[in-house]
Amino acid sequence: MDARPEHVREFLRALQARICDALERVDGQARFVEDAEDTPHGGLSAPRVLSGGRHIERAGVNFTHSIGLQLPAAASARRPELAGRGFQAVSLSLIVHPTNPFAPTTHANFRCFVATKEGEAPVWWVGGGYDLTPIYGFDEDAAHFHRTARAAVTPFGAHLYAEMKQACDEYFYLPHRREPRGVGGIFFDDLKLADWSTTFAFLQAVGDSFIPAYVPILERRCDHEFTEEQRAFQLMRRGRYVEFNLIYDRGTQYGIQSGRRIEAVMCSMPPQVAWSYGYPIEAGSREEELYLRYLVPRDWADLP
Amino acid sequence: MDARPEHVREFLRALQARICDALERVDGQARFVEDAEDTPHGGLSAPRVLSGGRHIERAGVNFTHSIGLQLPAAASARRPELAGRGFQAVSLSLIVHPTNPFAPTTHANFRCFVATKEGEAPVWWVGGGYDLTPIYGFDEDAAHFHRTARAAVTPFGAHLYAEMKQACDEYFYLPHRREPRGVGGIFFDDLKLADWSTTFAFLQAVGDSFIPAYVPILERRCDHEFTEEQRAFQLMRRGRYVEFNLIYDRGTQYGIQSGRRIEAVMCSMPPQVAWSYGYPIEAGSREEELYLRYLVPRDWADLP
Repeated sequence: MDARPEHVREFLRALQARICDALERVDGQARFVEDAEDTPHGGLSAPRVLSGGRHIERAGVNFTHSIGLQLPAAASARRPELAGRGFQAVSLSLIVHPTNPFAPTTHANFRCFVATKEGEAPVWWVGGGYDLTPIYGFDEDAAHFHRTARAAVTPFGAHLYAEMKQACDEYFYLPHRREPRGVGGIFFDDLKLADWSTTFAFLQAVGDSFIPAYVPILERRCDHEFTEEQRAFQLMRRGRYVEFNLIYDRGTQYGIQSGRRIEAVMCSMPPQVAWSYGYPIEAGSREEELYLRYLVPRDWADLP
Repeated sequence: MDARPEHVREFLRALQARICDALERVDGQARFVEDAEDTPHGGLSAPRVLSGGRHIERAGVNFTHSIGLQLPAAASARRPELAGRGFQAVSLSLIVHPTNPFAPTTHANFRCFVATKEGEAPVWWVGGGYDLTPIYGFDEDAAHFHRTARAAVTPFGAHLYAEMKQACDEYFYLPHRREPRGVGGIFFDDLKLADWSTTFAFLQAVGDSFIPAYVPILERRCDHEFTEEQRAFQLMRRGRYVEFNLIYDRGTQYGIQSGRRIEAVMCSMPPQVAWSYGYPIEAGSREEELYLRYLVPRDWADLP
């Protein structure tokens, strides 16, 4: 059976609503605003953004169904032979920036590409994953996040979690800082399992696992007391997030190249950020622990 | 006569001191801190950073003399045949982020490259310029800045200002926002005038003109009253600056690729930044005026 992007659209649009509901429930105050817009050839851009909540300073949960006549270069970097084909891309991409420095930032993406050419079978694949970026780390959070991801993907192959965990560590890395973005998670791209229905079931399993992977962590950290210094550390660490997204992230580059509404592409950016020169990190501090314990690839799912 | 990078070093190192003195004098409170470091083969990295001043929230005035065996790709984008040559690069690069939203941000760069290869004549050129980024625009500031630049370069060629002004408008442009970074200034690269001494005299004239181009503007705006809303507009506009520097700026890319100390490369980043989703701009407001009047290429030097 050929890829069915309309099924992915239906699934991701519903997942978008479920995720927004879950985040609104935790926040208890702010609501998502949707700016839906039909795009050429039957596509849809439907960013949902929540700003200035009680616990969530900014969340962007963006659904996009792009239908185009020419695949942009950033989307086909690994398959240059597909550049210029007609394509459909269905994607849900989200980011959550909590207010509390003890609540980690998260990012998730679930997407499906179908590239078509007259007289040839469609080429398709899925991609995505999710990752966690603590400001102040907790072993139990990193372990819970990774174990939930492992439980979701393992039914589709015993080797998948280890591969996708490593791909995540490799992708979310800032070479100019020699620093991982956070404690990772899972990342996959150009993925095609046995057939379309298995692949779609896999994408659904990963998508469904996002809320149980992240929301309990947000719930248990969002009321943690914090000081002004801890807030300052968070704003400085968010600068790393900006650096990654603008310098390296293929999703952001694709958003820019594909001519999507720039406000929707940039809604992943943190609401407040700070850059300092030579931020002082005290030996033995909770801040140093982030670098020494959490910004180091580690088998979080196998913690004792 | 061949290029004399040691003369450029002497000139730019002295200019760095003059600029820092002038900025400290305006600020009246904070001081620059220098973190000098000898680099391989006799090079020097000497960033000077001022943070948290009365009028200047952050300024980075970085001198770098890089001596290397292999020219990095970002430095030779326009002359790929030079990649891999031995080189010397002497550069002064600066950025000023004033606290007051009515005082514009500025950036300047003055640099000289010399690429060498056994048995061949050295290849050299100079590059640089300066540009102004208002948050709230003033005609008299834009006109003064451009006229000072024009007066500095015109003795070296009647056509130079117009060319360098246009190059500046083209370079400091954010395609994803369809927006100029500011009101421009002058920009030149791969520049070689009649001979080395003329070219060096030109670089000195431009360098010498920076303080009179910018400091009077900073002086007359740094005490302007401002509201919280105006500060918020400034932080949002600084986000554009971050986007330009991380996505497009060749200087930042060169800094990253050349393996310079990353804190020195990133000291150009604004201390505080904000991203909002769909920042509201009221019709007829001072904020709208920025977009309609100032973020439009205009012949500022020829204002009546």
